[in-house]
Amino acid sequence: MEERKIMLNDAEIPRQWYNALADLPGPVNPPLHPGTGQPIRPEDMQAIFPMNLVEQEMSPERWISIPEEVLDKYLLWRPTPLRRAINFEKALGCPVRIYYKDESVSPPGSHKPNTAVAQAYYNKAYGIRRLATETGAGQWGSALAMACRMFGLDCRVYMVRVSYDQKPYRRMMMQTWGAECIPSPSDRTQAGRNILAQSPDSPGSLGIAISEAIEDAVTGKDSRYSLGSVLNHVLMHQTIIGLEAKRQFEKIGKYPDVVIGCAGGGSNFAGVSLPFVQDKIHGRKIHIIASEPTSCPTLTKGPFAYDFGDVAKTTPLLAMHTLGHDFIPAPIHAGGLRYHGMAPIVSHMLEKNIIEARAYHQLDTFEAGVLWARTEGFIPAPETTHAIAAVVDEARRAKEEGREKVILFNYSGHGLVDLASYDAYFSGKLSAYELPDEEIHRALRAIESHPKCIGR
Amino acid sequence: MEERKIMLNDAEIPRQWYNALADLPGPVNPPLHPGTGQPIRPEDMQAIFPMNLVEQEMSPERWISIPEEVLDKYLLWRPTPLRRAINFEKALGCPVRIYYKDESVSPPGSHKPNTAVAQAYYNKAYGIRRLATETGAGQWGSALAMACRMFGLDCRVYMVRVSYDQKPYRRMMMQTWGAECIPSPSDRTQAGRNILAQSPDSPGSLGIAISEAIEDAVTGKDSRYSLGSVLNHVLMHQTIIGLEAKRQFEKIGKYPDVVIGCAGGGSNFAGVSLPFVQDKIHGRKIHIIASEPTSCPTLTKGPFAYDFGDVAKTTPLLAMHTLGHDFIPAPIHAGGLRYHGMAPIVSHMLEKNIIEARAYHQLDTFEAGVLWARTEGFIPAPETTHAIAAVVDEARRAKEEGREKVILFNYSGHGLVDLASYDAYFSGKLSAYELPDEEIHRALRAIESHPKCIGR
Repeated sequence: MEERKIMLNDAEIPRQWYNALADLPGPVNPPLHPGTGQPIRPEDMQAIFPMNLVEQEMSPERWISIPEEVLDKYLLWRPTPLRRAINFEKALGCPVRIYYKDESVSPPGSHKPNTAVAQAYYNKAYGIRRLATETGAGQWGSALAMACRMFGLDCRVYMVRVSYDQKPYRRMMMQTWGAECIPSPSDRTQAGRNILAQSPDSPGSLGIAISEAIEDAVTGKDSRYSLGSVLNHVLMHQTIIGLEAKRQFEKIGKYPDVVIGCAGGGSNFAGVSLPFVQDKIHGRKIHIIASEPTSCPTLTKGPFAYDFGDVAKTTPLLAMHTLGHDFIPAPIHAGGLRYHGMAPIVSHMLEKNIIEARAYHQLDTFEAGVLWARTEGFIPAPETTHAIAAVVDEARRAKEEGREKVILFNYSGHGLVDLASYDAYFSGKLSAYELPDEEIHRALRAIESHPKCIGR
Repeated sequence: MEERKIMLNDAEIPRQWYNALADLPGPVNPPLHPGTGQPIRPEDMQAIFPMNLVEQEMSPERWISIPEEVLDKYLLWRPTPLRRAINFEKALGCPVRIYYKDESVSPPGSHKPNTAVAQAYYNKAYGIRRLATETGAGQWGSALAMACRMFGLDCRVYMVRVSYDQKPYRRMMMQTWGAECIPSPSDRTQAGRNILAQSPDSPGSLGIAISEAIEDAVTGKDSRYSLGSVLNHVLMHQTIIGLEAKRQFEKIGKYPDVVIGCAGGGSNFAGVSLPFVQDKIHGRKIHIIASEPTSCPTLTKGPFAYDFGDVAKTTPLLAMHTLGHDFIPAPIHAGGLRYHGMAPIVSHMLEKNIIEARAYHQLDTFEAGVLWARTEGFIPAPETTHAIAAVVDEARRAKEEGREKVILFNYSGHGLVDLASYDAYFSGKLSAYELPDEEIHRALRAIESHPKCIGR
């Protein structure tokens, strides 16, 4: 009997994260200070992040040791299984072996705690006592809530009000892990009060929530801000995914021809792919594909430019594929893929043709997700269905080409707390939204015309 | 580094279920035909269940081979991990090693598919094309929905209307797996129409839903009924849990002093414990504890009697601990533990002092569940918190006795689709309900006075 799941035992867990900055060709454009236009200095960031994480963000070291305290928490659910999707393969009838790295087995059900646990640890080690963050649908907020509880930190999560009201389950998760979850805009911050004064019934937005969380962190005592994607150190923490997957492939004497991840801010995609990117840079032939929604086609249609990470323009300028910092995507159900920008490292890899990107609309992704659920059993998160749609595409191409292929993708999370999206799909309430070209042009003009932003 | 999770590889999955009827001391009282008062004959059950499952229900064989087709589906999530809860141990500060068999890793998030997959297979093999069942909160209905899809059977689930309206997530799971989920009472059956004629706004009950599902199965073409607990064959399918756990303990050279499971209808408790009961019968010293809610204290306070399995009195009479077939428990959040009766095999073991039973109220169980979530990360199902409360008790006893103990319990499911119960707990809306003695006496009198039932 061929193994369906390839496990690592606890002792085989990787003990270092991989820092792709050490290997990526060409310098990755540094973040710029919006005031000076100069590369940001570590001291510019220390009010927001603890210095040990700032150093990690800028480190040139290829390998960064994972602290024992972090490993100890990782072992609650890691190493995660590498599973083979035999039933899904049979349903497709294509000459492919499909393996998936199952990040849905973590307590909150996604890859997010890989960095949440690390960030909570480094903040704790630096003497920080409270973290503030924002969350949309709640995946990141719930992961940070759990991580903070494990290291005895207080945690305050500003959750976009419309999600707070409509998606109570992740709020309840945060509460169960002891975090304070505040609907945003709130009266806790000047930013929130300003919004409420103008529109008392504001449904909130991720931009507002970020502003509230940063203000909270900066004005509080022994408090810092925490971000769940985009930044280098966040992506690096996620490389545990790809590093484990490589060891698991070694165990079965295989290596993937294709690696696929869905991409919102870029952390789960980078997490699974960067360790394979290292091989690719050294000559290994491997196809690496980022999958995103047609409603928020950052990589496939957004220009590569210096832009802000948030609507309120409080972050440094990041060199990235972006639809413009004031872009508001259509309300698709893959909340984690509705970010206007893309991690600088991921954007850089696209520029260097190390990776490619594809966009899928949500009718296709849910169709793939339902086929998955009905063959493999597990119900994937709406974000994850974007990766599955790309897997289906690759499998069909392999059939057309008459080539056998080994596909790896990152199963970034389960959909048990997002079942309302499947309900909307079955009841015909979803549309195959594709961002119109005029919207893209508008985004491009907005970036180019903004005095701080630097278009391509 | 000591292993936190003990895994079995695919090839190590047990290939036989254990039938405790072959070893249990004294004859287990057979089900009786309510009309004749005589032990039920196989042919009496064939309108409801396929003959291959009826034979399994009555089989005296100690070991029943698991069909390859069932193993193939089990391998989607089995063998499940045996994990050690080191952080929870530290929080308790007692001389215990706590291991848990993690049944929450299945696609619907509970142990239920262990029997759902087996039942779907046997029905399919017998030529059945559609299964009907009932569900309360939806754990069982969702498991059967998935299993039916895997074997190409249609599936119709009658879900108690109040749960259908208030707990939409498991209904959406069933839909995602392609089952038809019908709020009960419905106009699909005579039983449902009768209720609706009297009370068009009836919130439904498990009793009504059972009547609808049985009527649907019996009157349909090539259709049968399926039950998720209580019966011998259901408990036997669940023994895969304990059989795997024994192999996992062998791997680390340990054996549990105490085995704990929560008990509603009895299937998850029996699943984890029966393989250890076999050892106990052969002289091994081991403590086996069933944990139930004080609001539905079937084992701890209910008499041992012949009673019906359902409110509508459509089932055979079963010899079991029961609170009376018309008992309606308080609306506690552990929906899976709100059954008036207990599996005959489990009831028999209590009579023979092979197991013991304890009751906990939900404030204590949620307290234990929150401590678990905040130390181990994973959020347990409300049912599972009853097992955790018993683990806490046993750990404290070990400290008092100054003895080191190895505890095994069954982590029967996760709580991600039951987070509203945690919300109710934190907002102080839960009470420590304990069934008053007069209610127990009433139940006892009801059983004794019923012409068909046979009290102790």
